[in-house]
Amino acid sequence: MLEELKQAVFQANADLVAHNLITLTWGNASGIDRGGGLVVIKPSGVSYEAMSPADMVVVDLDGKVVEGRYRPSSDTPSHLQIYIAWPKVAGVVHTHSCCATAFAQACRAVPCLGTTHADQFYGEVPVTRPLTAEEVQAQYELNTGKVIVECFRLGRLDPMAIPGVVVANHGPFTWGGDADEAVKNAVALEAVAKMALATMQINPQVTPLARYILDKHYFRKHGPDAYYGQDHSD
Amino acid sequence: MLEELKQAVFQANADLVAHNLITLTWGNASGIDRGGGLVVIKPSGVSYEAMSPADMVVVDLDGKVVEGRYRPSSDTPSHLQIYIAWPKVAGVVHTHSCCATAFAQACRAVPCLGTTHADQFYGEVPVTRPLTAEEVQAQYELNTGKVIVECFRLGRLDPMAIPGVVVANHGPFTWGGDADEAVKNAVALEAVAKMALATMQINPQVTPLARYILDKHYFRKHGPDAYYGQDHSD
Amino acid sequence: MLEELKQAVFQANADLVAHNLITLTWGNASGIDRGGGLVVIKPSGVSYEAMSPADMVVVDLDGKVVEGRYRPSSDTPSHLQIYIAWPKVAGVVHTHSCCATAFAQACRAVPCLGTTHADQFYGEVPVTRPLTAEEVQAQYELNTGKVIVECFRLGRLDPMAIPGVVVANHGPFTWGGDADEAVKNAVALEAVAKMALATMQINPQVTPLARYILDKHYFRKHGPDAYYGQDHSD
Amino acid sequence: MLEELKQAVFQANADLVAHNLITLTWGNASGIDRGGGLVVIKPSGVSYEAMSPADMVVVDLDGKVVEGRYRPSSDTPSHLQIYIAWPKVAGVVHTHSCCATAFAQACRAVPCLGTTHADQFYGEVPVTRPLTAEEVQAQYELNTGKVIVECFRLGRLDPMAIPGVVVANHGPFTWGGDADEAVKNAVALEAVAKMALATMQINPQVTPLARYILDKHYFRKHGPDAYYGQDHSD
Repeated sequence: MLEELKQAVFQANADLVAHNLITLTWGNASGIDRGGGLVVIKPSGVSYEAMSPADMVVVDLDGKVVEGRYRPSSDTPSHLQIYIAWPKVAGVVHTHSCCATAFAQACRAVPCLGTTHADQFYGEVPVTRPLTAEEVQAQYELNTGKVIVECFRLGRLDPMAIPGVVVANHGPFTWGGDADEAVKNAVALEAVAKMALATMQINPQVTPLARYILDKHYFRKHGPDAYYGQDHSD
Repeated sequence: MLEELKQAVFQANADLVAHNLITLTWGNASGIDRGGGLVVIKPSGVSYEAMSPADMVVVDLDGKVVEGRYRPSSDTPSHLQIYIAWPKVAGVVHTHSCCATAFAQACRAVPCLGTTHADQFYGEVPVTRPLTAEEVQAQYELNTGKVIVECFRLGRLDPMAIPGVVVANHGPFTWGGDADEAVKNAVALEAVAKMALATMQINPQVTPLARYILDKHYFRKHGPDAYYGQDHSD
Repeated sequence: MLEELKQAVFQANADLVAHNLITLTWGNASGIDRGGGLVVIKPSGVSYEAMSPADMVVVDLDGKVVEGRYRPSSDTPSHLQIYIAWPKVAGVVHTHSCCATAFAQACRAVPCLGTTHADQFYGEVPVTRPLTAEEVQAQYELNTGKVIVECFRLGRLDPMAIPGVVVANHGPFTWGGDADEAVKNAVALEAVAKMALATMQINPQVTPLARYILDKHYFRKHGPDAYYGQDHSD
Repeated sequence: MLEELKQAVFQANADLVAHNLITLTWGNASGIDRGGGLVVIKPSGVSYEAMSPADMVVVDLDGKVVEGRYRPSSDTPSHLQIYIAWPKVAGVVHTHSCCATAFAQACRAVPCLGTTHADQFYGEVPVTRPLTAEEVQAQYELNTGKVIVECFRLGRLDPMAIPGVVVANHGPFTWGGDADEAVKNAVALEAVAKMALATMQINPQVTPLARYILDKHYFRKHGPDAYYGQDHSD
């Protein structure tokens, strides 16, 4: 079942490796079939070299395994919360890429310091609040997803305009219209986090990008008046 | 038309990837046929893997597409301003390479701290002023080109002696006698920006290179008395 | 003799190179056959490209060469002390990987600043005390092993819960249930050291991960209630 | 003539690229035939991809080209001064590798902060004084060589015990018993410079390695009582 989606999710996981975002098995990508309400995700703790599309695991939105010989990624409940909360999301990625994770560990949002960031994320990539002891002790991965959704709700942020977050003490999650878009956003987040750190080292007094440039860059690539790329659906 | 130039511009774009200056599709190279006044440039938002020489877009100096099935890079108007202002330039490159972009985001020139820099750029690589809200809202990419040219005019800088700039809040542009030379200058700019950051971390009080060493290094590679390389046109 | 173990130790040494942890010949991996009390280790100062499984050296726990045409790694006595002190260890790795070595040179433990670290190491990766002049002058490599074991004994640390250390002024050692696990822990230690440095640069006031998150992350991958990966022995 | 040496020098130049020490054409390796007093060196400004052993240039110790269709590296006079001053040196390498160059640009020696450094260099890798305006204006490259030799003479340093230097404002030179050893010392210098910078960022108060550890590490690899590697000539 869902062979095409399995292939896409497998490819997304392989692309994370190709983009040097993965150390050992630290990371996972998933995609959803919105029609059937089924999510395809990487198996837990299986090495990337040994993996094939057939090893992807199919779960429903309650986390019940529908198909697959492996256990799904232990982060599955976090992915599911994102799919449940945000109907336009159809792909989710989690990595421990170095610089985005460093911002997460520092409990700091990734500031928007330039047009590279503004092209991908409409403002700073927020940091969640830390989870409480209770949230960690029971249903930890589900609560990780909940705290991501809460972060956007309380901050009145649009998850399709800022398709990523850093979870305090933990690391980045990104998402998009499909698994491939979530991968590209993971690549972009690591790149802008690395640039932000270098920028802060060159000029510790640096301030966020002016709103008028942020608006220009974001809306030239996204939204009804976009003119970047080959067409608006690109 | 312009098959040779298309091949050269395609190769320049591929070389940017090979030199690890490109994340996703962030960057573009172009070249000009000065005889016909036509510019060949990378298509917008097309992935590097899928690209072939035939996909390069031909535009005139007003930005009108003369040939090509794709839309030209959205940065085309910036490239054109550089070609219009500086007749000796025949290749332009724009990237978001990490360290050069960090200087741009910090709104700081890349200081000339050693002979590696002096071999390529005759003094610091300047940073433009930030664009105003008006310049951003209408004809943004054209104004980006204009602010680059203004930066060199007001600073009385020779664009052939300092073949690069960092646009405030944005990132680096480089140029040269052809697209390949513009690529090499992009590689050099990223390398010297990375070294400059490390140098400032080792010695925060570091001062720019003395003028007599700058002159020596620059003129041993460039100008009528050059003795570096195999001949003066190299 | 011990052909399978030689193959595994050879592969572990090759994997260190593939994971970019090795400069020139700086590093070594070993494995033990607990039944026979024999250790297989990389030969000293032989280049990685020229090495084959048959070049691995077999020594007993006193360091006497049992088989092999080469001299064993000069770090062999350090490895042996670890095998002698900790019966559950069956693989040991020593590298000079950049960031873990930087913490060693700074005489600082690698702090546990996030869940990436907590997934692999149950708390900070400790730094040993510096060796005394006497310990250095005679039986230096043996004393290096002894100071590692002392560090865990005095700190009441479980070497299977924190399978790594940085030796003051020197560099990292890691270990595990076999040579491959020791390699993975070396990869993890370099990754978390690199992230820790970046985290400290973003937020110099960062504090260690709260105990309740450390416990959660460590025990979801390790121990009787682990639910990460495909089974508990994984 | 000197086909074997040309092959070795060609290989040394190729190895510098393989070790990621070279940006564009910035760097060169040479070797000497002490019997004939002839030096083989990389041609100036020729790309590494296009180069073959037959392109190496043969010069005598006065810098006169004895054989070769290309001009020798513009840094040839610096190499020659090293060969003239130090009879045990038979290979010289110059690069602009990032971290060693950053120490040069910061006009700081590369401090000996750990055993990785002590294994290769018997103490800090010194920085030369800056060249005067007169030394730069005439015979610049020859004076670069002279200031390296002066640095070791005035500091009473043994060039075979500390086979490298950073030239103020410029970059690293390394040397050794042949071109391959000079390459390995260039690799080591970049690695220890990178580690030193990270160490200083973790602990700004870090002090140099104690003399007793420096002695131990250096002399276990070098000199009559060496026990590292497969034999004393290794």
